[in-house]
Amino acid sequence: MNTATHAATSELRVAVLGARGKVGREICRAVEDAEGMTLVAEVDAGDSIEVLVEAGAQAVVDFTHPDVVMGNLEYCIDHGIHAVVGTTGFDDDRLAQLRTWLEGAPSTGVLIAPNFSIGAILMMRFAAQAAPFFDSVEIVELHHPTKADAPSGTARRTAELVAEARRAAGSAAMPDATSTALAGARGADVEGIPVHSVRVRGLVAHQEVILGELGETLTIRHDSLDRAGFGPGVLAGLRAIEDHPGLTVGLEHFLDLPR
Amino acid sequence: MNTATHAATSELRVAVLGARGKVGREICRAVEDAEGMTLVAEVDAGDSIEVLVEAGAQAVVDFTHPDVVMGNLEYCIDHGIHAVVGTTGFDDDRLAQLRTWLEGAPSTGVLIAPNFSIGAILMMRFAAQAAPFFDSVEIVELHHPTKADAPSGTARRTAELVAEARRAAGSAAMPDATSTALAGARGADVEGIPVHSVRVRGLVAHQEVILGELGETLTIRHDSLDRAGFGPGVLAGLRAIEDHPGLTVGLEHFLDLPR
Amino acid sequence: MNTATHAATSELRVAVLGARGKVGREICRAVEDAEGMTLVAEVDAGDSIEVLVEAGAQAVVDFTHPDVVMGNLEYCIDHGIHAVVGTTGFDDDRLAQLRTWLEGAPSTGVLIAPNFSIGAILMMRFAAQAAPFFDSVEIVELHHPTKADAPSGTARRTAELVAEARRAAGSAAMPDATSTALAGARGADVEGIPVHSVRVRGLVAHQEVILGELGETLTIRHDSLDRAGFGPGVLAGLRAIEDHPGLTVGLEHFLDLPR
Amino acid sequence: MNTATHAATSELRVAVLGARGKVGREICRAVEDAEGMTLVAEVDAGDSIEVLVEAGAQAVVDFTHPDVVMGNLEYCIDHGIHAVVGTTGFDDDRLAQLRTWLEGAPSTGVLIAPNFSIGAILMMRFAAQAAPFFDSVEIVELHHPTKADAPSGTARRTAELVAEARRAAGSAAMPDATSTALAGARGADVEGIPVHSVRVRGLVAHQEVILGELGETLTIRHDSLDRAGFGPGVLAGLRAIEDHPGLTVGLEHFLDLPR
Repeated sequence: MNTATHAATSELRVAVLGARGKVGREICRAVEDAEGMTLVAEVDAGDSIEVLVEAGAQAVVDFTHPDVVMGNLEYCIDHGIHAVVGTTGFDDDRLAQLRTWLEGAPSTGVLIAPNFSIGAILMMRFAAQAAPFFDSVEIVELHHPTKADAPSGTARRTAELVAEARRAAGSAAMPDATSTALAGARGADVEGIPVHSVRVRGLVAHQEVILGELGETLTIRHDSLDRAGFGPGVLAGLRAIEDHPGLTVGLEHFLDLPR
Repeated sequence: MNTATHAATSELRVAVLGARGKVGREICRAVEDAEGMTLVAEVDAGDSIEVLVEAGAQAVVDFTHPDVVMGNLEYCIDHGIHAVVGTTGFDDDRLAQLRTWLEGAPSTGVLIAPNFSIGAILMMRFAAQAAPFFDSVEIVELHHPTKADAPSGTARRTAELVAEARRAAGSAAMPDATSTALAGARGADVEGIPVHSVRVRGLVAHQEVILGELGETLTIRHDSLDRAGFGPGVLAGLRAIEDHPGLTVGLEHFLDLPR
Repeated sequence: MNTATHAATSELRVAVLGARGKVGREICRAVEDAEGMTLVAEVDAGDSIEVLVEAGAQAVVDFTHPDVVMGNLEYCIDHGIHAVVGTTGFDDDRLAQLRTWLEGAPSTGVLIAPNFSIGAILMMRFAAQAAPFFDSVEIVELHHPTKADAPSGTARRTAELVAEARRAAGSAAMPDATSTALAGARGADVEGIPVHSVRVRGLVAHQEVILGELGETLTIRHDSLDRAGFGPGVLAGLRAIEDHPGLTVGLEHFLDLPR
Repeated sequence: MNTATHAATSELRVAVLGARGKVGREICRAVEDAEGMTLVAEVDAGDSIEVLVEAGAQAVVDFTHPDVVMGNLEYCIDHGIHAVVGTTGFDDDRLAQLRTWLEGAPSTGVLIAPNFSIGAILMMRFAAQAAPFFDSVEIVELHHPTKADAPSGTARRTAELVAEARRAAGSAAMPDATSTALAGARGADVEGIPVHSVRVRGLVAHQEVILGELGETLTIRHDSLDRAGFGPGVLAGLRAIEDHPGLTVGLEHFLDLPR
C-alpha cells in the first residue's frame, strides 16, 4: 500500500482498490498521467481500507473481486467516497443493496460498469441504432484461445441490444434460406441474432457487427489490443462521477452521446 | 414512357424521371415492389413532362441530369408534386431558386440528396459522433479503377464531418511522429484528416473509417456492392416527403436517428 | 444459336454450351473480348450439338446441366474437341467414364473444374501452405441469405485442404479453452477446422481464413463480387487445354504456381 | 549476464546477445520454453563476450546494435558459433565482410534476417506469387503513430517483390482512371505499386495487400500484435542454422515453402 500527500487542492483525489492486479496497475498509471486528478492510495489485498480516509480519497476505482467489492463499497458510501467499479458479479440483489446504502448518502455516486472500453460501448450503441435500417445483422467475435466462454459477454450484450432495437422497430424476421447445414455452421442464436465465436492464437479481443440490406453492408468493428484500453473509460467515469450521485449502471450514461 | 392507372386510392402515386438510366431502372423496380406506393409513370429523355399530371403522380423521383433537373422541379413544384432528387449539380444558387419556387407551394416537399445509401449516411453519422472520443481518425476508401476522382465525394464529406466534430469537441491534434516519408504515403489531407484512396479492379465502392485511442480501435466500414443499394434510401425519402414540406438537403434529416 | 466464321486461322475457335445462362453469357463476352481466341458458336438447350463441328470449334466451354453434360462431352471427345467444364455433378463413375472415352482420343483434353475463381483457388492454396506454421486456423465464410447450404462448398474444401496439410506436418491439436459455450457458437467442425457461416443481405460470396500463432495472425480473404469473376479462370483453362491432353480435375493444375 | 550449465548433451546450447532489450527478453523466454534447446547465456552491454565460449554456446541470437554486431559476429565465427541475427544495418560491405570471415569457418552458419515474423514472410511470399494473376495490387500498412518512417520497411519490401513478380510475368500496367486527385490521395509509388500508410493510436503493426481482377479480390493481411511474434521465427532460425553453413539473408530460405 502506498499513499501520497502531494495532491493540489483542486485535483480529484483518487485511490485504486486492486492496485496490484494487471488492470489495477494500468489504472494507477492512467490516473497518475491524467490531468485534474491525483493518485493518493494504491490498495490491494492485505491493506487496510482505512487508508482511503487517511489519504483523503474523494473517489475510488475498484477492480477487485466479487467477494470483497460489497465491503469496499459499503465503506466508501459510509464515508462519502465516490466509486467507479469494474469488478464483476453484480446481480439485482447487490444493486438493490447499493441503492439502499446510497439513500443515506445522497451526494455520493457509484458507477457499476461491465465495460470500460469506450470503443466497445460505441460499437454496441451504433449497432443498435443501425439495426432497424437493415434486413440482416450477425455478430462475429474473435478472441485468444484461452477464453473460457463463447460467445463473449460483449457479443451477447450486443446481440440483446440489437434484438431489442429490432423488436422496437417492428423489424421482420431476418432472411435465411439455409436448408442444409452442418451443426454449428450458422452460429449461436442469441435472441434471434446469429453470433459466431472465433478462437485463434495471436488474437486479443475483437468483434464485428455486420448489417446488410439490398446492395450494401455496414460493418462496425472493435479491436481491443491492450488492457490499457480501459484507462480512458475509467478516467471518463472518474471525471463525471461527482455530477452523477446515486447508482449508475453502464459507463454509456456518462458519455455525451445522442440517445 | 409508360403510365399506369391501377393505383389503389391510399397508395402514393410515384413517377420516375430518368427511368431508363441504370439507377432509374433500379428505382422503378424498387417502387413497384414496395408496399404503400404505385409506379404511375416512367419518364425519360424525349417524353413529355405533362405525363406527370396526366398520370396523377403525387411524387417523383428524379435521377436525370443537371441540365434538365431544374426544369423538372419547376414543373413539379408548380403542380404540387413532391420530389425526391438524386441528380447532382446543386449549388447555392440552385438551392435558393428552389426555395423561392417552394414559397408559392407551401405543402410541397423537395428532397435533394447527394447520397441515398443509408449505410453511407450511417457511416458518416457514426464516424462524426465517435471522433471526439478517439485520438486518431483516418479514412481509407476503396473503389474500382475507372473512378475519376480521388478521394471520393463520400470520403471528403466524411472527413469534413469528422473534422467539424473534432473542432467542436476541442480535440487535440492527432499524434503522428512520421519524420521520413515517401510523397503520398500518408494520404491526402482533408481538413486535417488523412484520406487514402485505393483503386483496385474488382472492387465496387467501399470505405473504412478507422478511429483509435490507447489500446483500442473502432472501425466503421461501408460496402456498396450494387446500385440496388439506392432503393431503400429512395423509398425512405418517398415515404417521408409528404411530412416534410419545403426544401430538405440530405436524406439523413428524414431518418429517425438520434442527433 | 449463333455461329461465326470470322476466326483468324491462328486463333483458338471456341464454342460455349449453355450460352444463354447467366454464367454462359458472361463467358461468351469474355471469350469475345479475349486475345488469341474467337467465339464461333453459342449453343443452348434446343440447339443441335452438330453446330460444334459445323462451326469448326476446337474447344468448348460447358456450363450446362448434370443431365446433359455427359452427352455433350461424349460428342466433343468423339470429334477431338477440347472441353473446359464448369457444370457440376461429376462423381467417380462419371470421371472413370470420361477417362475411358479419352483413351480413344489421346490428344484431346478435358478440364473438370469445380471452381473457376483464380482468387478462390489461390486462397485455398495459400491457406494450406501456411497452415503448418500456425497454431490455429479457422474459416469464416459470408454469403447472401438465399444460399441453401452452410458451410459453402469452397469453405468445406478449404477446411479439408488445411486439415490435410496440418496432418502431413504433424501439427498439434489447436488450442481452445472453451468450457462454456452456447450451441453453435464455435461453428461447424470440418475435419477439426472450425467453420463459421454468415448470411447477410447485401453480401455476395466472401471467405476469410484466419491463421494465428503467438503474437501474430495471417488472414487470407477472397471476395467474389460478380460472376464475371469466372471469366479469367475460364480463359486460363482455354489457353492451357491444348497442352494438357487427357482428364484434369481442378483448374489449379493449369496455373503456373509453386506446389 | 547469466550462464547456465544444465544443458542436456543433445540440446542446442543457445546464448542471447542483447538479452535485456525488449525483444531480447522475449527471445530468452522463447528459448527457455522451447524443446530441443537450452539457454546457456544472457549477454548485454557491459558483459564480456568471452562468456559465449565459457558457457559452451553453440549458437547465438543477436538483437543488439549496428555498432557492435560486427564485433560479435567476428568473435562467433572465429569460435565456430552459429549466429541468428535480427540486428539491422547490414549493407553490401558488411555482408561481403561476413562472407570473407565465413570462408575460414566452413561449417558455421550466419543468418541475417530483416524480419523474423513468419506471418510477414508468408504475406510477402503469397503476394508476389499471386500478383501475376491480378490486374491491380495495392498495399495498405497500418501502424501506431509513433512510427517514424512511412511506408514501413515491410511494405516497401512487399511492393518491390510484387513489382518484380509482375515484371517477370510481363504484367500490363495497372488500370487507374484517376484524373482529379488531391495530393497524396493515391498513396506513395514504390516501383509502380501504390502504398498507403495509416497511423492510428491503438494500432500495433498491420499490413494488407489487396489484389483484384474482374469480379473478385484477394486480400492478404498480416497483424502483428505483440513482439512475442518474433519468437517462433527465431526458433525456426535456430533449429535450421546447423544445416545451413555460410551466409543466408532472409529467414524465408529456412522455411520449408514451395518456391
